[in-house]
Amino acid sequence: MTRVRVDLNISLDGRATTVDQTPDDPFGQDWGRLTEAYVATRTFRERVLHDTSGAGTTDLDDEFAARYFQGIGAEILGAGMFGLHAHPDDPEWRGWWGDEPPFRVPVFVLTHERRPSLEMAGGTTFHFVTASPEEALAMATEVAGGGDVRVGGGATTVRSFLAAGLVDDLHVAIAPIILGQGVNLWDDLRGLERDCRIETVVAPSGTIHVTFTRERR
Amino acid sequence: MTRVRVDLNISLDGRATTVDQTPDDPFGQDWGRLTEAYVATRTFRERVLHDTSGAGTTDLDDEFAARYFQGIGAEILGAGMFGLHAHPDDPEWRGWWGDEPPFRVPVFVLTHERRPSLEMAGGTTFHFVTASPEEALAMATEVAGGGDVRVGGGATTVRSFLAAGLVDDLHVAIAPIILGQGVNLWDDLRGLERDCRIETVVAPSGTIHVTFTRERR
Ligand SMILES: NC(=O)c1ccc[n+]([C@@H]2O[C@H](COP(=O)([O-])OP(=O)(O)OC[C@H]3O[C@@H](n4cnc5c(N)ncnc54)[C@H](OP(=O)(O)O)[C@@H]3O)[C@@H](O)[C@H]2O)c1
Ligand SMILES: NC(=O)c1ccc[n+]([C@@H]2O[C@H](COP(=O)([O-])OP(=O)(O)OC[C@H]3O[C@@H](n4cnc5c(N)ncnc54)[C@H](OP(=O)(O)O)[C@@H]3O)[C@@H](O)[C@H]2O)c1
Repeated sequence: MTRVRVDLNISLDGRATTVDQTPDDPFGQDWGRLTEAYVATRTFRERVLHDTSGAGTTDLDDEFAARYFQGIGAEILGAGMFGLHAHPDDPEWRGWWGDEPPFRVPVFVLTHERRPSLEMAGGTTFHFVTASPEEALAMATEVAGGGDVRVGGGATTVRSFLAAGLVDDLHVAIAPIILGQGVNLWDDLRGLERDCRIETVVAPSGTIHVTFTRERR
Repeated sequence: MTRVRVDLNISLDGRATTVDQTPDDPFGQDWGRLTEAYVATRTFRERVLHDTSGAGTTDLDDEFAARYFQGIGAEILGAGMFGLHAHPDDPEWRGWWGDEPPFRVPVFVLTHERRPSLEMAGGTTFHFVTASPEEALAMATEVAGGGDVRVGGGATTVRSFLAAGLVDDLHVAIAPIILGQGVNLWDDLRGLERDCRIETVVAPSGTIHVTFTRERR
């Protein structure tokens, strides 16, 4: 049975996006602080940065990072996360992840723009679709080959899937910092924990990993 | 050296107050869910409910509950938490806690109302003062006999002390529920973690205890 999975890095005050980007610092310092523990993992270094030296942390943060990539058969992203908003009208734009993106599965990018599909190295194909969360999920499930579907981001897209009650497994990696600005993941999601088992573990980095596991649908 | 301490029960989305009170249910269901693990502790039952049977949980939640009462020399509360807003113009109102309140130290109630001090059984005296957070803290420190000062609540009062940078030890007991309404403890407190050591432990109840310990002032 395909499950719908979400993994996000948020701050203790629930912020899933940061707003201090500048042309000189396109990610921004807050993004660095929010994702510091994740980016330090061996899995992230291997899978996203193609660093095969074996460097990186290998504790609980890495266990979650590794689990992130396990069993996923298709992925759904928003136009913002793919980079269409930062690179408007650039038909050559192929995402942030280089020639060999870490997904290695079909990726549905939700957008109102029409674009041809992009076949990348390593098994990733980006399909650009205008669809409701339910429709996108049906398309992704269809090609997931029995694997799970991840809704990978960004914040707006994830929140639309959570609001529609479509997410079975939510993992938030909470950095113990108060950002005070950016999209609050939790807004208008009263009762999100209903029907879920909730587990919390704390990594040596101080990151608080909370998982919501939906037990019936 | 007197430290200024705060302990609050909040939801995963940071809510420190609840809004579903009715005349029939003056606390409301959300308050019950928010404080369930704390109210279940042996310390709460003994100290607040005067239940000396030894009933109640004795694990991590209880360790925090016990620590709550240790080493406090004076307390500061807001008018709302003391009950002046729920009981306006009632000169007989003596707080929610019966004849023998759990504080057992001088308690400064911040209010714009003028009221004579109330000496209660067991060592608690309520003093009603109109004062800035800094002034209230000076008064409380003066009578704390070298003990710590707790800012006990409610949400508005605690936030005014946090915003003024006056709190040395913040402990939040996070219930893994999304309330979606009520005062958000974290609002406008960007960078609160600065100069703090942050530690997180998870109780068997699922409550996530996060402590901010200020290391320099
Ligand atoms: N905290 C984390 O772990 C994490 C993870 C990933 C990303 N992020 C953050 O998320 C942010 C980017 O996300 P975002 O919230 O700006 O945007 P996003 O969710 O990536 O994309 C939103 C956009 O996708 C398109 N879209 C979404 N649903 C659609 C639908 N049903 N049909 C058609 N189009 C749809 C729309 O774009 P158009 O109408 O323009 O086509 C919409 O504006 C960044 O700040 C990033 O840092 C955070
Ligand atoms: N989550 C928790 O652990 C926790 C703990 C305790 C309480 N609470 C919640 O907190 C809520 C009650 O708190 P609240 O935020 O409504 O009110 P509050 O903080 O208890 O009291 C605020 C009031 O105190 C007075 N006040 C505050 N600072 C003052 C100052 N510097 N000088 C003079 N007066 C001052 C003002 O009243 P006047 O001007 O009217 O005199 C102000 O309206 C309840 O919902 C309760 O459940 C939560």
